Amino acid sequence: MSALDVGFPAHHPAPGLPTEVTVYEVGARDGLQAEKALVPTEAKLAFIRDLVDAGLPMVEATSFVSPRWIPQLADASDVVRSLAARGDDLTRHPVLVPNQRGLDRAREAGASAIAVFVSATDTFVARNLNMTRTQAIETAQQVVGEATAAGLHARGYVSMCFGDPWEGAVPPEQVATVTRQLIDAGCYEVSLGDTIGVGTPGHVGAVVAAHQDLGVGPGSLALHFHDTYGQALANVYAGLQAGVTTFDAAAGGIGGCPYAGSATGNLATEDLLWMLHGLGIDTGVDLAKVVRAGAAVTHLLGRPSPSRVVGALGLD
Amino acid sequence: MSALDVGFPAHHPAPGLPTEVTVYEVGARDGLQAEKALVPTEAKLAFIRDLVDAGLPMVEATSFVSPRWIPQLADASDVVRSLAARGDDLTRHPVLVPNQRGLDRAREAGASAIAVFVSATDTFVARNLNMTRTQAIETAQQVVGEATAAGLHARGYVSMCFGDPWEGAVPPEQVATVTRQLIDAGCYEVSLGDTIGVGTPGHVGAVVAAHQDLGVGPGSLALHFHDTYGQALANVYAGLQAGVTTFDAAAGGIGGCPYAGSATGNLATEDLLWMLHGLGIDTGVDLAKVVRAGAAVTHLLGRPSPSRVVGALGLD
Repeated sequence: MSALDVGFPAHHPAPGLPTEVTVYEVGARDGLQAEKALVPTEAKLAFIRDLVDAGLPMVEATSFVSPRWIPQLADASDVVRSLAARGDDLTRHPVLVPNQRGLDRAREAGASAIAVFVSATDTFVARNLNMTRTQAIETAQQVVGEATAAGLHARGYVSMCFGDPWEGAVPPEQVATVTRQLIDAGCYEVSLGDTIGVGTPGHVGAVVAAHQDLGVGPGSLALHFHDTYGQALANVYAGLQAGVTTFDAAAGGIGGCPYAGSATGNLATEDLLWMLHGLGIDTGVDLAKVVRAGAAVTHLLGRPSPSRVVGALGLD
Repeated sequence: MSALDVGFPAHHPAPGLPTEVTVYEVGARDGLQAEKALVPTEAKLAFIRDLVDAGLPMVEATSFVSPRWIPQLADASDVVRSLAARGDDLTRHPVLVPNQRGLDRAREAGASAIAVFVSATDTFVARNLNMTRTQAIETAQQVVGEATAAGLHARGYVSMCFGDPWEGAVPPEQVATVTRQLIDAGCYEVSLGDTIGVGTPGHVGAVVAAHQDLGVGPGSLALHFHDTYGQALANVYAGLQAGVTTFDAAAGGIGGCPYAGSATGNLATEDLLWMLHGLGIDTGVDLAKVVRAGAAVTHLLGRPSPSRVVGALGLD
């Protein structure tokens, strides 16, 4: 008998929180790109199908990054074409595009929604993209401009929003300035990533407030936490209290950041759902189905899920 | 270079939180009693010494439970006598006593502070103690009465405060009634345990409020979370917002609840400290020293620490 069978998580709403939240699933992209194992295209398509079946409204599909950088996602075009062929709504399956070449490939494959990413810090960009932060932002702005002009939806990611492994803590105003540029370029939403997982709840409030100061309200933001230091869910709770209603997570807690040397990956969708459902917040997602979808993938990856919920429910 | 070296966790206070918090360390008792491995007495004494050196104000030392139940703590008398012999302040090292026999043994060994425990639910008591909940509470009241009359400090633990593996969710009023009885019996503080780790932040607020309704303010409470479903730290944050200033945790995240079949044990002291220090809350504790203390014990236990902070700092 699992805890789900005796009615857990019990519903106890907290005052002042949103009643509905969008869980934006990144396992098939941010998860798989950071895992060593190569997952067959068919298994990725099954994973995405299972996640949609579980009720997840947004399931990021892949990244059109260079296969030389990330061979795990070398099948990006095949994934998008197959999703289109089986009739999936591609606006629900954004694809990451790091540059103009990525956008060209994504459009060729038929993508309807893209995402771009920039870093809030200089060192990370210089070390990983071999360009300056200003150059990286200009590239993202051009890609977003062309994509939206062509009728595609565009999401922005800002990485290193709380800390940088070399620079330390990142000023919230610096993050908000980057977000503002992405919104101005045409992004409908910007996801703020704590790429190395060092942030704590008061920091979350400060970051959201700094955005408000530049006219970017919590409705235009998503929060993207990695559980590297165990802080992800407490930070989500602080984000909910600050009015944010979209949170990124990866089924099974797969992934991480191979560049930043972190031990633990994305916040697990299962752990996020446990808290949201316990708070009586509607997500439209079936937790047990996500557990099963994640289990199938972690099985392929050959390692146990770092999700606490998955471990506790004993389905791993 | 570790994240500590570049100034993490960065300090970002959140409004309305306490400025000081007591971290009540339970690794040597609640942790070790739930681990299969037998740890030598000398190693336990070194563990307790290291935790005190790290600045932890309260380090629970052992339990005078029957060695037939928990052979891991069969050396309880030796532990207490050795702490006294080396000049430790025994009021900082409470010992758990499950019954009159335990209290007799604890007093014989020279303990200055004890802790009793009762369950908030019937099924757990019936299955594990073979008595009714009323009988268990009467036993605890008698033990606390005799202990305080003899000048000992007495702490109370209530287990299953959020959920019971057989009964499901537990009404907050039911928990508060038990706490009230322990306070009336003479406990200076009662620690509310989420033994199976199912609670979520709104539930924490409801439990603290139910206590306030019975005249038990947050200053008389501690919160004791297990990270079974990954909710522990978010629940601590909700507890801080509700005015609670004492939180139980185990260095290295060791332990668990062998009766309740949970996969993961106590909230790791390291993960708790990361959040508290990030919030700018004073604990008086040196995080790096706790990491080293926990690493020595998990090495003896022959398994990696489930603490995210320990894993990320790479000292495990």
